[in-house]
Amino acid sequence: MTSKELENLGEFGLIERLTRKVGSAPHLVKGIGDDCAIQRQTGERELLTSTDLLIEGIHFDRRWISLEELGRKSAAVNISDIAAMGGQPKSLFLGVACPAELPLHELEDFSHGFIAEVERYGAVLAGGDTCRSPGPLLISVTVQGEVEIGRAICRDGALPGDAIYVSGTLGDSALALQDLLAGRQPDSYLLRRHNCPTAQVELGRQLAERQLATAMLDVSDGIISDLGHILTASAVGARLELASIPLSGPFRQALQRNPQLIDLALGGGEDYELLFTSSDQNLSDSTLVGLNLTKIGVIEEQPGLRIIAADGSDYHCQRGGFDHFS
Amino acid sequence: MTSKELENLGEFGLIERLTRKVGSAPHLVKGIGDDCAIQRQTGERELLTSTDLLIEGIHFDRRWISLEELGRKSAAVNISDIAAMGGQPKSLFLGVACPAELPLHELEDFSHGFIAEVERYGAVLAGGDTCRSPGPLLISVTVQGEVEIGRAICRDGALPGDAIYVSGTLGDSALALQDLLAGRQPDSYLLRRHNCPTAQVELGRQLAERQLATAMLDVSDGIISDLGHILTASAVGARLELASIPLSGPFRQALQRNPQLIDLALGGGEDYELLFTSSDQNLSDSTLVGLNLTKIGVIEEQPGLRIIAADGSDYHCQRGGFDHFS
Repeated sequence: MTSKELENLGEFGLIERLTRKVGSAPHLVKGIGDDCAIQRQTGERELLTSTDLLIEGIHFDRRWISLEELGRKSAAVNISDIAAMGGQPKSLFLGVACPAELPLHELEDFSHGFIAEVERYGAVLAGGDTCRSPGPLLISVTVQGEVEIGRAICRDGALPGDAIYVSGTLGDSALALQDLLAGRQPDSYLLRRHNCPTAQVELGRQLAERQLATAMLDVSDGIISDLGHILTASAVGARLELASIPLSGPFRQALQRNPQLIDLALGGGEDYELLFTSSDQNLSDSTLVGLNLTKIGVIEEQPGLRIIAADGSDYHCQRGGFDHFS
Repeated sequence: MTSKELENLGEFGLIERLTRKVGSAPHLVKGIGDDCAIQRQTGERELLTSTDLLIEGIHFDRRWISLEELGRKSAAVNISDIAAMGGQPKSLFLGVACPAELPLHELEDFSHGFIAEVERYGAVLAGGDTCRSPGPLLISVTVQGEVEIGRAICRDGALPGDAIYVSGTLGDSALALQDLLAGRQPDSYLLRRHNCPTAQVELGRQLAERQLATAMLDVSDGIISDLGHILTASAVGARLELASIPLSGPFRQALQRNPQLIDLALGGGEDYELLFTSSDQNLSDSTLVGLNLTKIGVIEEQPGLRIIAADGSDYHCQRGGFDHFS
């Protein structure tokens, strides 16, 4: 194929190529191919919607992620916003602007990865838009999901005394990115955590259905920044136990060589784990055993975030989370 | 303000700045500020969704459109997809990736224009994402609307004998763009048609509620290309009367100087008028008087599109519509 292949294929041909593997779903009356997708609604659930931009040079670097992985990640990070409300993802809408030099087979790899990831969560690709990009590859994704009426878990419900939980482990993705930026090959587990995150839909659903969480979000900017959103929205403070932060084996190994890496677990980003508060003090030990939860702190009345080191002293993280403009 | 102002403001500050004027709507349980927007659903209507990308250098040129107009146009062309199904727009989701050098006040102009246009159609800005762009300004918009169950007007319902109608006038936007590309100042009416299109929501609603149309779309790529989508989806052909194509006064004046401009009315783009078919042969004369409709042809069993000139001969347009990859 030549660099003119996108041009030869044209917009309609490209849409057809990228979406020929699209499946169907009971709620999808009409998917790709008309002015809009048509979906059934129900009066028994609320509609959740979130939109994300992923831009080459800002959010990803094609040297470090395959297009198939990028497709998966584009779907997963967007679906993670549905998980963060306790919802079930239903339909995704994908916009792709391609640089003319991008080989068509790579674009198809992207599409395969995106659709495979969407199907993994029982959702469906329901619409899209494609065009040429005069600059970087850019991807826009919009996801729709559903949650039982009044059960969506927002950021503003944390109460003093609530325990703070996080799923999985923190800092893996940020450590992989730090290695990549420094020209080092990351540990393969850490790289997979960076390139192929998982949206914690099942955990979010259990928390919403059983009304176990008072506030929740997904960790995209690092827990200091993201917990800060919960504290601000809920008008409370928090105390975190540094020794409780859940870390993976490969992360712990790196930490032994360089103790400052702990700041990546606190202020790195792109973990896509769920961070939530609950009045249940034993969620990780007895209520939701097997879902890989860790209690990392407690919500307090006093505003601000206090991180307590193992020796009882205040710990000050040197990273404040991630901002896509800085 | 300096070129560092976006960086200083940061992502969260920018979202706050761009969305502080956002209104509310009865269906919107929770808008901007959490992982997802939360909306009420109803079992009595179907959900319509469409997503569009608008990219600097491909879809617009900041030399020719103000940011306030660009905001309006970004909303209107997306809402036009809801109009093209006969739906009522409800909620819009906006993604903006900004070049660092874009002055903040221009970004606010964009936001004001977008929100004003959204409100014009009774819809609401319900969510968004912002980040820095390493290249051009890029905008992604997703719109959600509703239509009575089974009443959405798709592309595949045209039947032989149906009359073909179009709203408004054709070619105004394409003629303005041709002048701009040639370095000429367009007529002010034509330029407004190019920079500030109107989504034909009211017409679409009437057609859906009264079940008057068999197939419909909005004219974004020129009627030859867009009617082609209806013919392909419906497995029919059509005959168009060249003399019936509705033209504005300024377009007619230009046409007198250059008769070849008629091809802009057939194969230009961005009219955002509604093109539809109906078994009602008198829609423009008696059924929907006052909605500025023109009957331009008839659906036929024989495949293909035949354009008939005033003297009865076949007319061959030199433009085949617009493709964002060519």
